[in-house]
Amino acid sequence: MLGIDPGVSRCGYGCVRGGPDGPVAVSAGVITTSPATALPERLAELAAELEALVAELEPAAVAVERVFFQTNARTAMSVGQASGLALVAAAEAGCEVAQYTSNEVKLAVAGYGGATKDQVQRMVATLLGLPASPRPPDAADALALALCHLTIAPRLARLEAADARRRATR
Amino acid sequence: MLGIDPGVSRCGYGCVRGGPDGPVAVSAGVITTSPATALPERLAELAAELEALVAELEPAAVAVERVFFQTNARTAMSVGQASGLALVAAAEAGCEVAQYTSNEVKLAVAGYGGATKDQVQRMVATLLGLPASPRPPDAADALALALCHLTIAPRLARLEAADARRRATR
Repeated sequence: MLGIDPGVSRCGYGCVRGGPDGPVAVSAGVITTSPATALPERLAELAAELEALVAELEPAAVAVERVFFQTNARTAMSVGQASGLALVAAAEAGCEVAQYTSNEVKLAVAGYGGATKDQVQRMVATLLGLPASPRPPDAADALALALCHLTIAPRLARLEAADARRRATR
Repeated sequence: MLGIDPGVSRCGYGCVRGGPDGPVAVSAGVITTSPATALPERLAELAAELEALVAELEPAAVAVERVFFQTNARTAMSVGQASGLALVAAAEAGCEVAQYTSNEVKLAVAGYGGATKDQVQRMVATLLGLPASPRPPDAADALALALCHLTIAPRLARLEAADARRRATR
């Protein structure tokens, strides 16, 4: 399960897998591109790095943060561009792809949609059995996305299976 | 010179080249993806189509519309995603890449930043020697972007050359 917190300057990623004793962190970090480079080249670099990451980690599913544009029009464009590249990298590798808003991630990971960033990061550490919140914060956010999908995906599958059974017995 | 008017549902493209009697339209059209398909697959389709388009037309330069997000937050995300894919397709093919706002295009093509869409489309037809405005409008907008770059790029090159001479003689 790979989580991606999209951005052109900094794109966080975090990979977790389910284990017998709960989820385990596989890998986490940040892909950065230099503001000194022209935007098309930065985006091409990011696309290549994301493709390599998905090829290396071979996640079954990729969860990308769904961003809304009310917040900051200045960074909105580049977040949209980075999220598009992440979605394409995942789709081209044949991964299942999910998108979650920041609130959905908070709700799934911290049990509360209004949780602070710090609370979410501490919950990520707790859930993954890490001694401290993962650093940098972009990587922690990406791990939270992956945990969100790990928590929500099986529930959705159960709901869909129940729904299918209900339809079949009608 | 390839212009791209980015969008996920409809992505306009228009290719022009300079000729002895002024610019000539080479190709124009719209890449569409189905709203019935999941977003990651739509973006992957669009990325593949843009890559094929650039490979086929071999433009020296690609001009992509630069979009601001004040206008429509609902479509903003997908326009950002599509523009990112267009910029990557151009950069990966080694093309020069430029971005222009809608106002810059209007100014370059119609001589007036407040020109209406219809005025711009009629100027595109006039400049390219076409009997009527190109259809659909997305293709006409993309041709306008290409014409904008064809008009502005040589001026910028002259200005930069003049600037370099000034520095050299100091």
